[in-house]
Amino acid sequence: MNQLLRVMNFNVSSDGIAAGPSEQQTLERPFGLDRPERLFSWAGATASWPMRTEPGGSRGLDDCFTRDFARNIGAEIMGRNKFGPQRGPWADHEWQGWWGEKPPFRTPVFVLTHHPRPSLTLSDTTFHFVDDTPAVVLEQAKLAARGQDVRLGGGVSTIRQFLDADLVDTLHIAVSPLALGTGLRLWDSPEELNDRYHHDTVPSPSGITHHLYWRR
Amino acid sequence: MNQLLRVMNFNVSSDGIAAGPSEQQTLERPFGLDRPERLFSWAGATASWPMRTEPGGSRGLDDCFTRDFARNIGAEIMGRNKFGPQRGPWADHEWQGWWGEKPPFRTPVFVLTHHPRPSLTLSDTTFHFVDDTPAVVLEQAKLAARGQDVRLGGGVSTIRQFLDADLVDTLHIAVSPLALGTGLRLWDSPEELNDRYHHDTVPSPSGITHHLYWRR
Repeated sequence: MNQLLRVMNFNVSSDGIAAGPSEQQTLERPFGLDRPERLFSWAGATASWPMRTEPGGSRGLDDCFTRDFARNIGAEIMGRNKFGPQRGPWADHEWQGWWGEKPPFRTPVFVLTHHPRPSLTLSDTTFHFVDDTPAVVLEQAKLAARGQDVRLGGGVSTIRQFLDADLVDTLHIAVSPLALGTGLRLWDSPEELNDRYHHDTVPSPSGITHHLYWRR
Repeated sequence: MNQLLRVMNFNVSSDGIAAGPSEQQTLERPFGLDRPERLFSWAGATASWPMRTEPGGSRGLDDCFTRDFARNIGAEIMGRNKFGPQRGPWADHEWQGWWGEKPPFRTPVFVLTHHPRPSLTLSDTTFHFVDDTPAVVLEQAKLAARGQDVRLGGGVSTIRQFLDADLVDTLHIAVSPLALGTGLRLWDSPEELNDRYHHDTVPSPSGITHHLYWRR
C-alpha cells in the first residue's frame, strides 16, 4: 500500500497568502493576520470540522473536504511556526501548541525545528520535534503512520520545502475570494504547479475555490 | 452522536434514470441498460474506487466522493434488485449477489425483500434479508452500525421509499451528461428536493455534475 504525503484544507487568499509576515505572528495572532477566519471560516461552517464543538453545520461540497481530514491519516508533519510563535532556542518547554488539551490531530505529529525538545503527548496526539531534511522526516512520519497517509500541515515555508524536494503527492488548497497583499505566499498562481500535477479547480457555493492536485 | 442515513455515489443520467425498466434486469445486465458504465465510469477512474484492482487513478474532485465510500459507514440498506435479478420467492439460496467472494461493503447489509432467506456472510460483509418498513429497517441498520452512519445503497425505488418516509439525511447523486429516455427514474429534476434539503451543485472536470443534499 502506497503511503501518500497530502496537503489538506490549506487556506490561502486570492493572492496566495496564508499568513502574515513571520515577525507579525504572536500568541494572540497565530496567523499574524487581522481576522484570519476570513480564510478558514468556510471550514468552520461545515458539520465535520474537527474543531466543531456544537451540532449543526453544512454537509455540502465544503464538508466533503473537512470530513476527509482524519480519514486514513496516520501522522502529520508541520513547521515550527504552525506549532507556536517562539523563535530560536526554547526558553522552556511550557508551550504546548495552540490547541489545548485535546489537539485535533490524534496521531503522531512531527514538528520541524532546529531546536529539538522532548516529545510531548496531549490526549491522543504526540508531538515529536525533529531537525532533519524533509526526506528523512517523511520517512519517520510514514513509519509512525503504520501504512496510512501522512498529512503535511503547513505553514507555507514547510509546504514549499516539501514541494521543492518533490515529496508531495496531493494537495487541497482552499482559495478565499479576498486579497491580502502582503504575507507568506504559497504561490503566485494556482496554475504554477500544473507542470507536475493534475489540477481540478472546484468553485464552491460558499465562495471558496478548492484546488486539487495530484501527481502526473 | 447522531447517525445519518446517506445516499452516496448514486448515479443517474441527465434525465434522472439510474437503471433500465425492472423487467430488463438480467444476470448479464445488472442495471438493465446497455453500457451502464456510461453512468459510473467516472467513479471507476478514481484512485479510491472500492472495486479498483490496479494502482493508479485520479485524485481530484471525483476521488473525494469515492474515497468517502467507507468512511464512518457501519451498515448498508439496499433493495432486493440491487442484490440480484430474481423476483418473487427464492428458488434456492445459491445466488450470493453480484460482487463475488469479497463484496465491497465490508459491513452488515440489509436487503429489503418480501421473501426473507437466511443471512449470508461473504468475507467481511454479511447480508441480512428483511421484510419490514423503511423506519424499522433503518433502526436495525443503525443498531448494527454501532454509532456509525448507514449508507442507503439504492436502487431507485428503495431511495424513493426512504425519501417518501423522510428518513434520508444526506444524498450525493452523480449526474452523467447523457440522457437515457426510459427506465427507473429517481427524479424529474435535481431541484425537486430543494424544499426539504440544502443543495450544492458541483460540476466536475470529468463531465459529471455532483449534486449534494443535506436536510434543511
